[in-house]
Amino acid sequence: MKVQDVIDRVLEKSCGGRKLEQTCDVLASGSPDQEVSGIVTTFTATVDVIREAIAIGANLIITHEPTYFTGADKVEWLENDPVYAAKKKLIDDNGIAIWRFHDHMHMAKSDLIYDGLIKELGWEQKRLDPSSPWSYVIEPTTVGELTEFFKRKLGMSKVRIVGKPESPCSRIGILVGGGSLGLGREEMPMELMRDKELDVMVCGDITEWTLCAYVNDASMLGMNKAMIVVGHERTEEWGMKYLAEWLLPIAEGVPVTFVDAKEPFVYL
Amino acid sequence: MKVQDVIDRVLEKSCGGRKLEQTCDVLASGSPDQEVSGIVTTFTATVDVIREAIAIGANLIITHEPTYFTGADKVEWLENDPVYAAKKKLIDDNGIAIWRFHDHMHMAKSDLIYDGLIKELGWEQKRLDPSSPWSYVIEPTTVGELTEFFKRKLGMSKVRIVGKPESPCSRIGILVGGGSLGLGREEMPMELMRDKELDVMVCGDITEWTLCAYVNDASMLGMNKAMIVVGHERTEEWGMKYLAEWLLPIAEGVPVTFVDAKEPFVYL
Repeated sequence: MKVQDVIDRVLEKSCGGRKLEQTCDVLASGSPDQEVSGIVTTFTATVDVIREAIAIGANLIITHEPTYFTGADKVEWLENDPVYAAKKKLIDDNGIAIWRFHDHMHMAKSDLIYDGLIKELGWEQKRLDPSSPWSYVIEPTTVGELTEFFKRKLGMSKVRIVGKPESPCSRIGILVGGGSLGLGREEMPMELMRDKELDVMVCGDITEWTLCAYVNDASMLGMNKAMIVVGHERTEEWGMKYLAEWLLPIAEGVPVTFVDAKEPFVYL
Repeated sequence: MKVQDVIDRVLEKSCGGRKLEQTCDVLASGSPDQEVSGIVTTFTATVDVIREAIAIGANLIITHEPTYFTGADKVEWLENDPVYAAKKKLIDDNGIAIWRFHDHMHMAKSDLIYDGLIKELGWEQKRLDPSSPWSYVIEPTTVGELTEFFKRKLGMSKVRIVGKPESPCSRIGILVGGGSLGLGREEMPMELMRDKELDVMVCGDITEWTLCAYVNDASMLGMNKAMIVVGHERTEEWGMKYLAEWLLPIAEGVPVTFVDAKEPFVYL
């Protein structure tokens, strides 16, 4: 099976073959004609993930996020960059193809990133709204207990929250990855929290002047509102873990391995 | 002295009276004609900051960030919002005027936010480039030691880093607040790091797919690169602390008090 065959099958199974004209889902390295020896799925094709792919003999990495540090994976600005040069050499010397599965992954019949995260949390039956993966109703707990649940389930040593650990909660919003920035509309996460009467927003990337400030004020006003900042990678990695098993039926015996890109942060 | 007098004097002293046509520096509450009983400076006019202003008898808050949770401080979308309603009632019942000093503060002859931070760090003599507040050369240290320095100087219990605590460093970049998102250009923080040969970038708000991914890869490749994520509020609060003393000569005896809005996060 060639790289292009894998891409075509993935787009067929996820989106019925529908293809966006403008998309960041690009082949960042390698050739469509390359024969695939093995597939690795991961959140980001970091240098360590690429080394792991080489070690297990896989030459196609399906990544959710860019390889070269900006949304569009453009490389002109990196022409004389030592980080780019060394990463590209590692990729090229080992004949690694890297394809990004981002936009089409989120627009699949069911958003595959959420599918993976919700499976990891065991929240498949907790959806508040059948038409959206953004809100859930769980057994009443506290923000502190819920944070411990996320740390345990997602393998984190530290998590940042806004609000009070002792606040009760049961209506939970989740905006994964960069979605918690509002998908082009700063108000969106706050409108979701208000309209669905959510107690807690679980977030990927954030800015401090928007939802963070809203939740902080709500908490100071005595309302039971909180934010749990799990981060971009820790909210989305599980979709790429799920993707490995989702790929199996269409991989025709080519080995598929999930490699955890791991949280980039150390907490000191 | 009236609210408008304070605004005019601040803009005259900072920018020689130059005024942006398009700006987020708006009067989010109160009237230009209101007599000022006292001034509070702060990073964000949170509910707790407003309560502190009321307690000390100040009725003008000069804030760096928005009052109502989006960049432009628009309130139409908040019409039926309980957080907005309760915060607005607190403000109106106590006759508090809130003016934002953001764009003009950064475009002052010397960026006043950086001036405050660098004073707090004691790095006035460490500038790499006289024309820019973005890069510094310090005595050789390690990323771990430098992180402890920031925790101590800026009053933080935990700090996230990317890279290795044992990495040596002496060339340090600082992008405060939302500036570490690139000021409209995702590549900017990485270009700065490369062009000035910086070992460490100290950041406010970040996204995980840009500078964070670049530094993570560089570190995995064995380069001595790291990121210290101090956060938006902790990098910019010190400019508002400095502003309180900067205001004294033009305040004509009106009391000026800095109120720390405090880091919004709890680390669990």
